[in-house]
Amino acid sequence: MITDATETADATGTHLNHWVVTLSCTDGPGIVHAVSGAIVAARGNITESQQFASHDTGRFFMRVQVESPADRAELEAALAPVRERWQMDLHLDEVGRPLRTLVLASTAGHCVNDLLFRQRAGQLPVEIPLVLSNHGTLRDLVDFYGVPFESEAVVSPETKAAFERRILDAVEEHDIELVVLARYMQILSPELCDALAGRCINIHHSFLPGFKGANPYRQAHARGVKLIGATAHFVTSDLDEGPIIEQNVVRVDHSRSVAELVAIGQDEESRTLSQAVKWFAERRVLLDGQRTVIFR
Amino acid sequence: MITDATETADATGTHLNHWVVTLSCTDGPGIVHAVSGAIVAARGNITESQQFASHDTGRFFMRVQVESPADRAELEAALAPVRERWQMDLHLDEVGRPLRTLVLASTAGHCVNDLLFRQRAGQLPVEIPLVLSNHGTLRDLVDFYGVPFESEAVVSPETKAAFERRILDAVEEHDIELVVLARYMQILSPELCDALAGRCINIHHSFLPGFKGANPYRQAHARGVKLIGATAHFVTSDLDEGPIIEQNVVRVDHSRSVAELVAIGQDEESRTLSQAVKWFAERRVLLDGQRTVIFR
Amino acid sequence: MITDATETADATGTHLNHWVVTLSCTDGPGIVHAVSGAIVAARGNITESQQFASHDTGRFFMRVQVESPADRAELEAALAPVRERWQMDLHLDEVGRPLRTLVLASTAGHCVNDLLFRQRAGQLPVEIPLVLSNHGTLRDLVDFYGVPFESEAVVSPETKAAFERRILDAVEEHDIELVVLARYMQILSPELCDALAGRCINIHHSFLPGFKGANPYRQAHARGVKLIGATAHFVTSDLDEGPIIEQNVVRVDHSRSVAELVAIGQDEESRTLSQAVKWFAERRVLLDGQRTVIFR
Amino acid sequence: MITDATETADATGTHLNHWVVTLSCTDGPGIVHAVSGAIVAARGNITESQQFASHDTGRFFMRVQVESPADRAELEAALAPVRERWQMDLHLDEVGRPLRTLVLASTAGHCVNDLLFRQRAGQLPVEIPLVLSNHGTLRDLVDFYGVPFESEAVVSPETKAAFERRILDAVEEHDIELVVLARYMQILSPELCDALAGRCINIHHSFLPGFKGANPYRQAHARGVKLIGATAHFVTSDLDEGPIIEQNVVRVDHSRSVAELVAIGQDEESRTLSQAVKWFAERRVLLDGQRTVIFR
Repeated sequence: MITDATETADATGTHLNHWVVTLSCTDGPGIVHAVSGAIVAARGNITESQQFASHDTGRFFMRVQVESPADRAELEAALAPVRERWQMDLHLDEVGRPLRTLVLASTAGHCVNDLLFRQRAGQLPVEIPLVLSNHGTLRDLVDFYGVPFESEAVVSPETKAAFERRILDAVEEHDIELVVLARYMQILSPELCDALAGRCINIHHSFLPGFKGANPYRQAHARGVKLIGATAHFVTSDLDEGPIIEQNVVRVDHSRSVAELVAIGQDEESRTLSQAVKWFAERRVLLDGQRTVIFR
Repeated sequence: MITDATETADATGTHLNHWVVTLSCTDGPGIVHAVSGAIVAARGNITESQQFASHDTGRFFMRVQVESPADRAELEAALAPVRERWQMDLHLDEVGRPLRTLVLASTAGHCVNDLLFRQRAGQLPVEIPLVLSNHGTLRDLVDFYGVPFESEAVVSPETKAAFERRILDAVEEHDIELVVLARYMQILSPELCDALAGRCINIHHSFLPGFKGANPYRQAHARGVKLIGATAHFVTSDLDEGPIIEQNVVRVDHSRSVAELVAIGQDEESRTLSQAVKWFAERRVLLDGQRTVIFR
Repeated sequence: MITDATETADATGTHLNHWVVTLSCTDGPGIVHAVSGAIVAARGNITESQQFASHDTGRFFMRVQVESPADRAELEAALAPVRERWQMDLHLDEVGRPLRTLVLASTAGHCVNDLLFRQRAGQLPVEIPLVLSNHGTLRDLVDFYGVPFESEAVVSPETKAAFERRILDAVEEHDIELVVLARYMQILSPELCDALAGRCINIHHSFLPGFKGANPYRQAHARGVKLIGATAHFVTSDLDEGPIIEQNVVRVDHSRSVAELVAIGQDEESRTLSQAVKWFAERRVLLDGQRTVIFR
Repeated sequence: MITDATETADATGTHLNHWVVTLSCTDGPGIVHAVSGAIVAARGNITESQQFASHDTGRFFMRVQVESPADRAELEAALAPVRERWQMDLHLDEVGRPLRTLVLASTAGHCVNDLLFRQRAGQLPVEIPLVLSNHGTLRDLVDFYGVPFESEAVVSPETKAAFERRILDAVEEHDIELVVLARYMQILSPELCDALAGRCINIHHSFLPGFKGANPYRQAHARGVKLIGATAHFVTSDLDEGPIIEQNVVRVDHSRSVAELVAIGQDEESRTLSQAVKWFAERRVLLDGQRTVIFR
């Protein structure tokens, strides 16, 4: 989907850039024509395009991939009048540029391993300058992938506040665009949730909205459900209620113990989180109130 | 799965019956040996066998299919000492015998059509002597399958009580073994729930325990879930909390309206309910406290 | 997905039509801008839009839904220069118009029942003026839905030729836009395949390209596969090799007999065929050489 | 499913061992009774039991887990007469004992990483004394998990023969019980296939029997399939035709390039292979002619 090269050449050898434009605005007629006109003006060819008009919020969403000899300044200039005319929330980026991503972890390694393995294998367009953890457990794993690792114990309100300050410092220091909670087992403070709004993804180990809160597999076992799952969602101060990005389930039966549900569920957690991170990094995830628009 | 013929013959031409034995009792050593001994004594051969020991309740569950020249009396006699020794809740039935089933309906036809079509096609080992509805909408559909249909409006506490009396009368009159709520849109009274305990199956149009109560697809849309589903469960007076028998989900995305979720979900409702009814009719569903054991 | 009303009104009470435009042409820059310009010129608002550029064939594909006060003539006039300029294969239709569909059947009723039930329930935008069968078995079922039914035995080259002439006559007589082989168990002649090219859909009872030809469930059982499935595809004279529209699978295990695989597979056949017909009727299926583009 | 402790104690503090018995023999009446009798005689309690009678081959298969204070000698002695009477192919093992497993690899790391990560996380009851590869690519990855790694180039018939001798030497040296081809990209010689018959598992990157041979994702793309998959199977000299152990699929659409299909398919390959290895190590996989019996 994302090529690692963001530059190609056309038939005449002209150097081509690859751009991804995402936008949202109040819906109305003529938007697609206006946007495509700006792209034509910037010598661009649309290679992928998706749109959605939300009946719930009256918002219009669009994601367009463009190949063009134009540089960022030229394309921005062409889009500027459209952006202004429609009061768009518009974002322009290079296709395939790795997103600067901070990973928060605790003791469970499956999600961290999955993210790091996929990143190294070139399947996940992120760069991870740091993994922060409230335990030292995963140091060896993270070291293996050559990623810096820091851990600080969180055992009191004071240490929790200190850890959250460290998170915010790291976000600033590394110019972080996405924070991933890879089975990080601490509840973020409302202040931190606000500071990271729209750029912090959590994996919850249940098929939300079923089994919110602690020990979801224990709850699932007690209830005797026939499918268990995982949910990747944006973090908000309303715990386990943030906009859902992706969900997966797997079939189980009565014979499974809680421990087995945990083991079975980990696969769904890993792949659901990695999928959500991938889509976010590719600018395929947009917010429509409490819901997400996913341009797969 | 089960052939409609419950009699075959062995190599010497001896007439063979096919029996299904289901049992539960307090777990302990020697049960399988005792049961298989009784079956050998009754000249039986075990053709299918499943068991489960529940750590939660300490109960042992078993389902055995047997082919034998023995008639019911001989097999019962052989099993009697085992049943007594272990104080078993034991049930003996012919494989493939159609279960006498009462269907309750309202206006939506998809589940009723699916049940009746499968029954007629020989895929569902039930016989349906009556469909009862609180609306007349489905009369033509049910007529087509040659099944008697009765409807009575439920518009007040009095008419509701009358309808529930009619249900109980029908259960008695037709010697009903299973009541199926095929998108029947009335809440059963606690008394009726008790009277039908363990033999009344409902289809809920959500992936429980998410979206209990009314308008689950509206709730699912508002929450922006990425999978919607259906749950077949035993009816108890604890609304939408009865033991779960089967669940299925299907993927949806942000572009689906509530009306589309309803249409998409109906397929899952139909097949989930028919699957639950089939397993129940084949004696594959046993109760383990608030959970079910499903011997697929 | 598609509402049955193809007319709404805007805020000023102006009567709005709903149109679906599908097109394909050789790829190149500026197509989206040209199409959206024509739509703006015809006072249209794009409510849904999808596009795809095929690297294999160099073709560009687009499907656009438009609401506009314009009638067909106005919209056609606006699109005419674009169509000419790009030498487009362009099609304009009303959203939700029922497609005139001929169903061919033999003895198995599950697919026919599913199509007719969904059509009547408003889930499938087709009208079915006739079901043609080479057996009389399904007459009662089709009668129930009030659809004309004809059967002629096919037992020799002569009767086969006669039946195929009847098919072509029916296509002409009823102005048929789609022919559906709903488990029709005769191989169409190459001449008939050609005559119906691009508008004839078959359901094959296997997960193609595995298990082509006869008795696919028997083949699947012998091979011990762990998933069985169904494939809806366009009919071509190259048997079981036509472009694939939709596929589904379901898990099975070693304990299933061939007869059980048949029963289990029928659900996948029904829903896969109905899904393919629905997408086709909604103009979501386009041909790209030997492959299909599906704008879901 | 597998507890890490294979010893527990009963209520009186008696030390309990956990055993798994797998057997197959010609089917006939009384087998279950005889086996359960031997287990009772060895003071055992059956905690899990599954059986299957194959209509195709006339063989009976059984897998029983037993807890008992008996040691191996006592249980073997109790089972010996039953084994002899029925001429059983019977195997007795400790529950949870790690299977000695040799991994063969080439350049692709996803399956190797998945196996090693799960083994270290305690999800896969295997021990891996060696990874053998025909490339040096994966040395760092394997080193990280502390597993010995050897690579030898295979570029000619001579080096291929040498590599196969090294495989057989390693099997003997490490008393290997299972050889896993984790995307090992060499065809094994018929002699090696025979030497490893029934204990060598391969992952094929397609949903067999579709797309046998080389470049299955390219074939899948050309054919325009809507689901791609992976198949874990026993290796036989009949290439890609060995008995199937597990299969999984994932949905794709027309927009995916061959390279994207490869990336998407790798997840299915990893989890399908790990699942097959887990079941094999837990003695849940038995051979029934060209088919497998999987006691999940």
